[in-house]
Amino acid sequence: MRLTLEPSLDPADYSFAHSIRPRFAETDAMGIIHHSAYAVYLEEARVAYLTAMGHPYREVRSGGVDFAVLELFVAYRLPLRFDDGVTVHLGLGEVTRATFQLAYLLSVDGVAHTTAVTVHGAVDHEGRATRLPRFFRDLPISGRRE
Amino acid sequence: MRLTLEPSLDPADYSFAHSIRPRFAETDAMGIIHHSAYAVYLEEARVAYLTAMGHPYREVRSGGVDFAVLELFVAYRLPLRFDDGVTVHLGLGEVTRATFQLAYLLSVDGVAHTTAVTVHGAVDHEGRATRLPRFFRDLPISGRRE
Amino acid sequence: MRLTLEPSLDPADYSFAHSIRPRFAETDAMGIIHHSAYAVYLEEARVAYLTAMGHPYREVRSGGVDFAVLELFVAYRLPLRFDDGVTVHLGLGEVTRATFQLAYLLSVDGVAHTTAVTVHGAVDHEGRATRLPRFFRDLPISGRRE
Amino acid sequence: MRLTLEPSLDPADYSFAHSIRPRFAETDAMGIIHHSAYAVYLEEARVAYLTAMGHPYREVRSGGVDFAVLELFVAYRLPLRFDDGVTVHLGLGEVTRATFQLAYLLSVDGVAHTTAVTVHGAVDHEGRATRLPRFFRDLPISGRRE
Repeated sequence: MRLTLEPSLDPADYSFAHSIRPRFAETDAMGIIHHSAYAVYLEEARVAYLTAMGHPYREVRSGGVDFAVLELFVAYRLPLRFDDGVTVHLGLGEVTRATFQLAYLLSVDGVAHTTAVTVHGAVDHEGRATRLPRFFRDLPISGRRE
Repeated sequence: MRLTLEPSLDPADYSFAHSIRPRFAETDAMGIIHHSAYAVYLEEARVAYLTAMGHPYREVRSGGVDFAVLELFVAYRLPLRFDDGVTVHLGLGEVTRATFQLAYLLSVDGVAHTTAVTVHGAVDHEGRATRLPRFFRDLPISGRRE
Repeated sequence: MRLTLEPSLDPADYSFAHSIRPRFAETDAMGIIHHSAYAVYLEEARVAYLTAMGHPYREVRSGGVDFAVLELFVAYRLPLRFDDGVTVHLGLGEVTRATFQLAYLLSVDGVAHTTAVTVHGAVDHEGRATRLPRFFRDLPISGRRE
Repeated sequence: MRLTLEPSLDPADYSFAHSIRPRFAETDAMGIIHHSAYAVYLEEARVAYLTAMGHPYREVRSGGVDFAVLELFVAYRLPLRFDDGVTVHLGLGEVTRATFQLAYLLSVDGVAHTTAVTVHGAVDHEGRATRLPRFFRDLPISGRRE
């Protein structure tokens, strides 16, 4: 495993928050949100974070860089349900020349439902590893290490 | 983290194999399979495994038990592409009274592309933890521990 | 075909609008939003519409009624792209005792990209046809007929 | 509407069949397969059809051509359920210089559950309309016209 972050259950440990409302299409026959939808929620929060930092992912990609997902970890503590008001808290951890990690906390009404970590590598449009864009130097690190 | 399995890169360490052909719908603008699709591939392999063991998930569910996903870990080593012939190797590890873990290796033409681990808990239809069905006692344990 | 609505290209013909921002996960290897994602956008707009009308779909379902999709038609005129600011215009057409139709126009920066129609039937939790909830009597009909 | 095909309920009217087993991930809180999954099933059947005709979609795309979806129509008659053995019957209808239509019938144990039509346009990798590949001249037309 490359991932070293241990996501906190305290929203105060995260620098960014994004709201999601789970779709009916994302429910399953257990009546809850299917576990595969969470990777998409994390991605939506990540995209909103980059936009909020002044570097929309569209622009990053136009600049020739993609942020490939190298690792994904999700701990499902309590289920999410259709139309819940979900807050995705996000914090940047570990940044190297070519990779970064993000920690996430998903909460509903202040209750922690899910934690997650993603590890990303900068790649060019042929998928070859490349350096992170310079703006990463200036992003605040907020995710706690293990 | 509950997960303790370290998925092996050697297919011989897995007891079951299932074939998947990634769909065009599962590709993304990077031209590869989107990382969220893998959770669904693991699930399809898991369902095929239960069927092969003589306990189709449909029957397990009719018996009042669901296998909730408690944790998911995926390490994306090499991308999958549309219409690749993917083999999902699966091995059962750690079984407790109420949980079990599975390790996975996804390979294309014998080359390891992805490894993964899922942790599951038996729950009733109201989502309360319950015991694993008895047949788990007889399933061979093949996933290597860390 | 049950569907009789002809969706207009003029936003003024619709009574409700909802904003969507297509996710990266919804792109495909053609670099555009995959056509299967649109059904989910229409559903999200429908759910937002019901909420705006004072009848959240969660409550409708708690009351024992689901709105099954009986028919779906989508005309893809121009592609949607990742992170586009999409407006989904929605109008209610044809209402019978047990079914209703909705027309949709998806636009980006005022340009029509997609039109769609869905036909729905009220069903109980066993999937049997039932009457529409009473509040449908009071909803304004705005979708133009063919 | 461009679509002119009226999909038949008789499997004998279709030239090709492909098997699908709906995934648990594709179910929804109504306990049935979500209506957005069907577009993906149709696509999978289409890809299998092209492969069976000797022209895998991967090769078509390497040759510089994509088959954009211009229109989609689905009539949901009976629900599909998790792990059903679904047969997707497919027939080619209307072929023009730059477009083609396909009709579909989805059945379970010989019972018609769903019919559908898709209309496709050949486009180059910039999304501009182009001619269909020559091999379309030799494909048998089987979908009935309205």
